[in-house]
Amino acid sequence: MEKFKILFKPDNKEIEADRGEILLSCAIGGGIYINSSCGGDGICGRCKVIIEKGSFTTEPTGRITQEERKKGYVLACLTTIHGDLVVKVPPASRLDITKIKEEDAKLLRLKGIYSQAEDTAEVEAISHKEAFSHSPLATKLYLELPPPTLDDKVSDLERLYREIKDKKDIGFMQTGLTNIKRLGAILRQSDWKVTVLLGKRNETTEIVSIEHGDTSGRNYGIAFDIGTTTVVGQLVNLNTDEVLGTKATHNRQIVFGDDVITRIVYATEEDGLEKLHHAVIDNMNEIIKELVAGNKLALTDVNGVLCAGNTTMIHLLLRVDPKFIRMEPYVPTANFVPTIRASEAGIKINPRGLLACVPGVSTYVGGDVVAGVVACGMSEEEDLTVLIDVGTNGEIVIGNKEWLISAAASAGPSFEGSGVSCGMRATNGAIQRVRLQSPEKVVLETIGNARPRGICGSGYIDALAELFTHRILERDGKISTSIKSSRIRQMETGLEFVLAFKDETDIGADIVITEQDVENLKRSKASIYSATAILLDKLNLRFEDVKRFFIAGGFGTYLDIEKAVMIGLLPDLERSRFTFIGNSSLIGAREALLSYEAFKKAEEIATKITYLELSVEPAYMDEYIQALFFPHTDIAKFPSVGALR
Amino acid sequence: MEKFKILFKPDNKEIEADRGEILLSCAIGGGIYINSSCGGDGICGRCKVIIEKGSFTTEPTGRITQEERKKGYVLACLTTIHGDLVVKVPPASRLDITKIKEEDAKLLRLKGIYSQAEDTAEVEAISHKEAFSHSPLATKLYLELPPPTLDDKVSDLERLYREIKDKKDIGFMQTGLTNIKRLGAILRQSDWKVTVLLGKRNETTEIVSIEHGDTSGRNYGIAFDIGTTTVVGQLVNLNTDEVLGTKATHNRQIVFGDDVITRIVYATEEDGLEKLHHAVIDNMNEIIKELVAGNKLALTDVNGVLCAGNTTMIHLLLRVDPKFIRMEPYVPTANFVPTIRASEAGIKINPRGLLACVPGVSTYVGGDVVAGVVACGMSEEEDLTVLIDVGTNGEIVIGNKEWLISAAASAGPSFEGSGVSCGMRATNGAIQRVRLQSPEKVVLETIGNARPRGICGSGYIDALAELFTHRILERDGKISTSIKSSRIRQMETGLEFVLAFKDETDIGADIVITEQDVENLKRSKASIYSATAILLDKLNLRFEDVKRFFIAGGFGTYLDIEKAVMIGLLPDLERSRFTFIGNSSLIGAREALLSYEAFKKAEEIATKITYLELSVEPAYMDEYIQALFFPHTDIAKFPSVGALR
Repeated sequence: MEKFKILFKPDNKEIEADRGEILLSCAIGGGIYINSSCGGDGICGRCKVIIEKGSFTTEPTGRITQEERKKGYVLACLTTIHGDLVVKVPPASRLDITKIKEEDAKLLRLKGIYSQAEDTAEVEAISHKEAFSHSPLATKLYLELPPPTLDDKVSDLERLYREIKDKKDIGFMQTGLTNIKRLGAILRQSDWKVTVLLGKRNETTEIVSIEHGDTSGRNYGIAFDIGTTTVVGQLVNLNTDEVLGTKATHNRQIVFGDDVITRIVYATEEDGLEKLHHAVIDNMNEIIKELVAGNKLALTDVNGVLCAGNTTMIHLLLRVDPKFIRMEPYVPTANFVPTIRASEAGIKINPRGLLACVPGVSTYVGGDVVAGVVACGMSEEEDLTVLIDVGTNGEIVIGNKEWLISAAASAGPSFEGSGVSCGMRATNGAIQRVRLQSPEKVVLETIGNARPRGICGSGYIDALAELFTHRILERDGKISTSIKSSRIRQMETGLEFVLAFKDETDIGADIVITEQDVENLKRSKASIYSATAILLDKLNLRFEDVKRFFIAGGFGTYLDIEKAVMIGLLPDLERSRFTFIGNSSLIGAREALLSYEAFKKAEEIATKITYLELSVEPAYMDEYIQALFFPHTDIAKFPSVGALR
Repeated sequence: MEKFKILFKPDNKEIEADRGEILLSCAIGGGIYINSSCGGDGICGRCKVIIEKGSFTTEPTGRITQEERKKGYVLACLTTIHGDLVVKVPPASRLDITKIKEEDAKLLRLKGIYSQAEDTAEVEAISHKEAFSHSPLATKLYLELPPPTLDDKVSDLERLYREIKDKKDIGFMQTGLTNIKRLGAILRQSDWKVTVLLGKRNETTEIVSIEHGDTSGRNYGIAFDIGTTTVVGQLVNLNTDEVLGTKATHNRQIVFGDDVITRIVYATEEDGLEKLHHAVIDNMNEIIKELVAGNKLALTDVNGVLCAGNTTMIHLLLRVDPKFIRMEPYVPTANFVPTIRASEAGIKINPRGLLACVPGVSTYVGGDVVAGVVACGMSEEEDLTVLIDVGTNGEIVIGNKEWLISAAASAGPSFEGSGVSCGMRATNGAIQRVRLQSPEKVVLETIGNARPRGICGSGYIDALAELFTHRILERDGKISTSIKSSRIRQMETGLEFVLAFKDETDIGADIVITEQDVENLKRSKASIYSATAILLDKLNLRFEDVKRFFIAGGFGTYLDIEKAVMIGLLPDLERSRFTFIGNSSLIGAREALLSYEAFKKAEEIATKITYLELSVEPAYMDEYIQALFFPHTDIAKFPSVGALR
């Protein structure tokens, strides 16, 4: 096919285009940002550009005034390329959220938590589970249509449907007016050889877009875990299911509040909702951009995004006001949200690409938990199984293929590396394993074997367990003064233990664990353990009845189950019952992205899960207070730990 | 519920509004035109208004700049009313198609065919047919939802779905993000008493909009027959199926060409497609406005529009380029088009209301014919039945419940009162019945018993038959010179017969039938008769095998079958086999509007009908030429006529 050169000003970036390609797609594909909020439907009128030179056709539109037309203005989404072009993108059509972005970035830098998205370690696959069938959110299909003849005169659209149905078993298909308007020209220009992008959308199959020639090899998607503290995206090849990369970053909403409730309050302030919405969209667009660039792809090759997040995060992602979540009786506006065009939410991928969300259960049990259940497969198990997702909100699901009951525990962000003095995400330089050979001699292992920069969740669990075993940590969480070590220091705020001295670290400062850190970590682990215990108790079950535990969370690649039991985060059972599965929310989102079967399974699970509000349980506070010890007030509950000390 | 006063400038029109009502809906409801092309989704940013005074809340949007916000700009679709308001609608947000409208109107006046939409006679109901079940395109449902409690904490959206499903047997339901964004507030503001508008859309049920309190009594729809020459709209109460009024007007596209081919050619010129599109949209909006005003309704009470039209008309309505229709092998872009939001096409009703089209069969057999088949019920008949739709394109369908075959005949617009010297639509003052007591003495009957203004289709048929019976008209269509009458006059262009002299008419001129008129009418009738004959012949059938004929067309309320046989438009069979059914396209559109069952039936029919191209039949031209006589070259085919002369 004939190729043309499109020069975009003021970036002076030259992008190659096919004859008949739509200018907006060409721009986005080449990384030129042009506003667009209607998915290239010619409705929003935001993608105005000026064509200074070259051959093109453009559809008439009421969004361009007579005066603008004289100046060469066109809507990029309605303009078809017929030759080399010089295109100017005027300021009004360039990304208009820059201001908010800069403002937030400044605040984030002040808080010291801003960091560029970095590679995080690849999440673990769960091997035991049967795979879902391959049926991704977006599928591409290359078609060589028979041109119409006097004997075969069905309309262009029916011809397309006929050919698709001939190759794929699809029931009802639908197409928007935008595609129909372009169909006649695209079929003839491409000599009846086109690629259709098919999307699963609200129980039907949609022809999302139609592209010239064979582009079926370029079909990618991104799964997102949108956490209160961390946003993680994973690029996958939708044709092959291959995982191509993962990026994580702190949720930029943190600048508006550390937890969900503070953010909901912030959303009620002027422009608050808008800012929170833009913050997470910026996070996602940044991750998408880096994943796409890192794999030498174009943004237009990304045809679907599938998100799992807690209920408030999904509200903010879609710019649905979350305020009713914190008004009695605390109900969200929606747990099941429709699949929309990603551009409707401001996500920059193929302008007609889709955005779907894993459905949630309730205010406190969101799509992230449902995705976790999909990921670990517990809803298919005969045996009683527990999923514990350690996040800023800790969520617990108990059940099997017959029933599923969930609860939430306000664990705080300490295991995600927030709210603790030297905490960091599980990324390069994070201490993830700690061994004490003596109170003086510490052996550390960092992610990427880099010089230490901080401590991630699994590092904290290791450190607490080691300090506890060496009796540096008392059962109540105080640092012992009877042990002699240069690493134990009295500071103004209390005692602290130095894991790495300044000259060993990459940050020009000591990396320490303070008594306040221990207190925060202890509360996190107590809240999760006690919630699990109370939930089982409510069901007249004991820990021993649970055949399998899946532990999920953003700890990094590694979690030492032994150590987690030792600090009392997990119950003292045979270690073989435990499986660490990493970021199960991301895995579940990826499975739903790659398989409509998994997406439907998620809907089934979300409908099936019962939610139990623990805060109204009288026994919960007692259980929690008892768990505020290492490993527990009642050491008899942890025989293997008792034997060690 | 509390009522507020909203003053709109510069119209200085005061409109009453409920607390919590959306400003755009209030404006449209009160007849204030504000641009909007995204259905109130906050995407297009065209409904900018300035609030000068009063209490309101507005959702943040990137479509309003910082500067505009300071000046009081908001998007009307995102603004909720909380008190009396003074609202200014700036010029940019007012109807921007005015220019095109004025231009066209001027041209139309030049051509002398422009007329204000007027009441046309009510179309006939078809009584024999079994009614379709009541299930309109848009349904309203008033709900008093149980507010959430600690024991009943499902999300707002699921609560709404649950309540709807409790009252109605609905499978999969979907809702757009716009409604979800507003849901939390609307439910609480209206004390959990809301009316949902449910729409049938592409195989699923959509929650189209959610309104405060009980508005279930206000649910109207408009069925349209969009003809090449005439556009007719009919207002119906979607709750009761009651027909409230009908308006017809000439299709404004006529200024760009009388027939479909000329218009397709015009569409390829610069802005041609846009102008043709706007012309028909203006027609429709004008009809809607008048029907709504005439019944003291608000535009926002109209929730659905259902259109039947020929294939080119539907392309132009949706602004789909029709150019491929006239390129070999003449295929349309689409025969089945998706149900869209009416505002996407520029139709001014409830901004979230729906627009659906009856599907078509092929380039020459459109949704108007399919609607006709639905209307007459021939697809359910055991007996062989023929439907003849006399329009600018005459269409013939033959078949029964087993099979349906169609053909098209280029009849020309003469039976619609165009292309003939004194032709007019079947409206007030149109001569619809003609009796000659002698060559000198003529008795006329006009629609509305008004002074004659012109001749409509049924008037021409009557006149031709009477002139023929009195031997004033020769069998070849010439006016006889051997009959003496002051009504027969020799003019420069040939002979003519005066039906009404200047002093008897309302137009200050004689109303005449010229030899050229007779020639045009003869060609029309010949084309329809011969197409029917050839189609039967191709199927090895004879006229005698047909048990029932349905005759449709915009003749007005009346068609004298006897006279139609006499001039050779219809075959000479027992008159009891013929039924005149009026505008069957409009009736079918109305049935599809009032019943999803009828809409599905139309889809089934459109799939089932085979199209036969007559122009490639060698016998067609012979048959046509033979039919260019009154009643036919072979008088033996018309024994009852032969007996008269």
